Amino acid sequence: MTQTMAAAGPSLPSAKAIQVYTRGALILDEESPETRDSRGIYLPNYVEPVSHVAVDIGGSLAKVVYFTRSPEPPSSPSIVATKGSNTISDLSTPISSSPSRETPISGSPPLHLRINGALTPSILDPSIHGHGHAPITNDLLNLDSDSLHSSLLRRVSVQHFPGGSLNFERFETEHIDNCVTFIHDLISRSAELNGVPIEEMRRSVKIMATGGGAHRFYELFGSELLVEVRREDEMECLIEGLKFLTLIPDEVYYFSDELIHSVSHPNAKVLNGKDGVYERPSPDPPKYSVTFESNPSPQLPCLLVNIGSGVSIIRVDEDGSFERVSGTSLGGGTLWGLLSLLTPATTFDEMLALSEKGDNATVDMLVGDIYGQGYGKMGLKSTTIASSFGKVFSKESGKKGTFSAEDISKSLLYAVSNNIGQIAYMNAEKYNLERIYFGGCFIRGHAATISTLSYAIRFWSKGTKRALFLRHEGFLGAIGAWIKSFGEDSEDVRRRHGGGDTAEEATSLGTSSPPSL
Amino acid sequence: MTQTMAAAGPSLPSAKAIQVYTRGALILDEESPETRDSRGIYLPNYVEPVSHVAVDIGGSLAKVVYFTRSPEPPSSPSIVATKGSNTISDLSTPISSSPSRETPISGSPPLHLRINGALTPSILDPSIHGHGHAPITNDLLNLDSDSLHSSLLRRVSVQHFPGGSLNFERFETEHIDNCVTFIHDLISRSAELNGVPIEEMRRSVKIMATGGGAHRFYELFGSELLVEVRREDEMECLIEGLKFLTLIPDEVYYFSDELIHSVSHPNAKVLNGKDGVYERPSPDPPKYSVTFESNPSPQLPCLLVNIGSGVSIIRVDEDGSFERVSGTSLGGGTLWGLLSLLTPATTFDEMLALSEKGDNATVDMLVGDIYGQGYGKMGLKSTTIASSFGKVFSKESGKKGTFSAEDISKSLLYAVSNNIGQIAYMNAEKYNLERIYFGGCFIRGHAATISTLSYAIRFWSKGTKRALFLRHEGFLGAIGAWIKSFGEDSEDVRRRHGGGDTAEEATSLGTSSPPSL
Repeated sequence: MTQTMAAAGPSLPSAKAIQVYTRGALILDEESPETRDSRGIYLPNYVEPVSHVAVDIGGSLAKVVYFTRSPEPPSSPSIVATKGSNTISDLSTPISSSPSRETPISGSPPLHLRINGALTPSILDPSIHGHGHAPITNDLLNLDSDSLHSSLLRRVSVQHFPGGSLNFERFETEHIDNCVTFIHDLISRSAELNGVPIEEMRRSVKIMATGGGAHRFYELFGSELLVEVRREDEMECLIEGLKFLTLIPDEVYYFSDELIHSVSHPNAKVLNGKDGVYERPSPDPPKYSVTFESNPSPQLPCLLVNIGSGVSIIRVDEDGSFERVSGTSLGGGTLWGLLSLLTPATTFDEMLALSEKGDNATVDMLVGDIYGQGYGKMGLKSTTIASSFGKVFSKESGKKGTFSAEDISKSLLYAVSNNIGQIAYMNAEKYNLERIYFGGCFIRGHAATISTLSYAIRFWSKGTKRALFLRHEGFLGAIGAWIKSFGEDSEDVRRRHGGGDTAEEATSLGTSSPPSL
Repeated sequence: MTQTMAAAGPSLPSAKAIQVYTRGALILDEESPETRDSRGIYLPNYVEPVSHVAVDIGGSLAKVVYFTRSPEPPSSPSIVATKGSNTISDLSTPISSSPSRETPISGSPPLHLRINGALTPSILDPSIHGHGHAPITNDLLNLDSDSLHSSLLRRVSVQHFPGGSLNFERFETEHIDNCVTFIHDLISRSAELNGVPIEEMRRSVKIMATGGGAHRFYELFGSELLVEVRREDEMECLIEGLKFLTLIPDEVYYFSDELIHSVSHPNAKVLNGKDGVYERPSPDPPKYSVTFESNPSPQLPCLLVNIGSGVSIIRVDEDGSFERVSGTSLGGGTLWGLLSLLTPATTFDEMLALSEKGDNATVDMLVGDIYGQGYGKMGLKSTTIASSFGKVFSKESGKKGTFSAEDISKSLLYAVSNNIGQIAYMNAEKYNLERIYFGGCFIRGHAATISTLSYAIRFWSKGTKRALFLRHEGFLGAIGAWIKSFGEDSEDVRRRHGGGDTAEEATSLGTSSPPSL
């Protein structure tokens, strides 16, 4: 049947199933524990036939994903790296390791080659010749026929151990040259390690570029790296990345139903939708335990809220089709921009660290500040925030500067996170979606951000909807671009010939053809 | 029938119709043209039997409303004051007159007595004794039976000309003493003008207090003014005020369907829901003409979005029942608080003036900044804001301070306004409400704010819903408290005896009984 399909047509419809074999995938406990969200993902049953370097260039950060083969399995694909313990206090340790690496990387980064993993040019890889079209194993027979197409699956059999690892890097878009240099060095080093001429190496590497910067820096990547560059639609890549990551064991995590308090005090009253009422959202919400999803299953339909510099809200249907239904310009860029003006912090992580020590009540106007008490009739407690930053304004300008950077950071982080949670919830309600995935580099595994988003969803939905998070939250687009490198050359060719989805896209793509090799 | 009802029960259900006779109401062109939103409302057919001073104390501003009789009709209840012309450029003149008075009033304000109007103690008012229960006139017969109850209507007949005026004042909550002093002087001056002892005057004055500060400053008002103070629920007052104001001719205004451009260029292509597509919201949206509602009609059901320091979103049903369905802490207090830290402005109006000269593109990250072009597939133009303040953050801290106060003001004003518009729209959609009223002191008749809110509603609803505004936008609660002074003594008594709506409210009210006279 798969043979028939392969012979029948020049191309398959756009892939609806993940094309990378994720069975046995492990998240690695790497040598750099600071790289909380950029730990490698070990794929024991997968080998890449052609080296693809995927890059997702957003407004603030450029994210890079690439695959390297492993000559032997990782020495310790540690479970510790992937299993959060069951308390919120632990959340900040495994998820937001401290001290965090100052990311995005600035200056010219050293080239960390993971697990002896250089890019592998296909011509040197015996597994491609020997096992390129591996037999379909039993556990794949339940997938739909499209997924069974061997040229799409591009996998090796379970017996081909080890596979290799996906590697993750981040750069500032403002310093995109660092990103280009990194990829350049990666290619050069790979040629050296593989013992092939650089020209040959370049012929076997493709850059899969997505995000807005894929257009802005298209020429730059082509001319600097002298390899083929393909551009992929940003939203399509996000969804592809989401579909892939949600199949990786211990990648997805979420607030469990148990309050930390009730875990440690089993007889205490539990304030949740079933047994009581939820407290209103606040910068110090009730503390729930965290659960990692060890046995992942397909997660569609769902809502994807991607929080980068700005926020995109995407409805994903059960068949993988999607629509960008909403968004807000109040995103990560807003928070970092304002905090860079209002505090001495110079990095994201410094700002997050400040916020953890802050008390928002000095800058926020609480219901109690206005009422002298709660507004019980409306369910507003005295500690509910009536107006973010509402205490700051005063005609006595002498007051300026008396607010601490910590308090300002805590207030703004909550205000931005809660606003995103509120808008996300309203969209999930509108489209009747129970699962709400939050992705994007804004989240950074920061406990307060995750708690705020989680609790906003839990409160507003009265416990019926769930906020879900991803360990590699910022790499959805880059992973999606990497996945889209398989089996879609025909689409790429179509787009290059002006067959884009819209006239505008066709035109914009037509103005700059790929660099010649 | 009205006699029967009066005899039947101790009290009527809470009033569902406006109890003040608004027929013939005019908005006055007063001696202070700066008081854009606090021009008196002349009510030719109404006389107040007991003097009520209503005060709505919010987080930032305290709003005062009181009624004064006119011995003769106002010399020129100018139409100019109430009719905006039909272009957006004129909007800033009649609605946001400049130079604006520096409000809220600081220092001890002079006592402006309007149109010879002191508060009138009921015992001196012959109309109460002669016309206290005026005959029902024909035009009232269409109202429901509740409304016909003469003790509720408390009006005088149409023949009793002139009536008097509602007067409006604002103070900073931070300087609530100025508000107390103003009311104190008003009572003293009224006693003097009426030739009665101050004690007698005080017995005929009641303070109707609402807003959060009604609780916080309850003791203060009672002990300083030595008059009876009654507290009224904030949301109930907002709704009462809305019902009243929407019946005042030329009080309500909104964007018309005609673009300014198409008014002046009748043959140009009109970009609206019927003839084309709407541009996405931006700080410079298409300019529509403005229409004032000269022949008001009941406006329920509707959504009320009250933007003060924080934002309350209230669903009002056709029968006047209501529910606070949503809100956001990102309101006026957030904007003013952040701008007071980021700009040299020391008043609201200075900040608004700054924003009018700004260019948000220097601080906001636009789609074009990320893509180098638009993202046509998603309908995002290159000028669409991807991230508010997204250009500000840079690890090169030397960049700090290179952003102008004007640009920062423009960006933040748009971001806060648009966010409120977005959340308001989603609630209007959820509850299937076509009319969305925006009230609260945040709006200040500022053209950019009104345009942003109006266009956000128009864009997201594809032209099916309308943003509506009120000339006395900030006084909804105070007017509502003033209206609630009529015929509800019995409810007040019930509440004082612990029969409040919730246990918490009963308790809180029980802790401080009214001051004795």
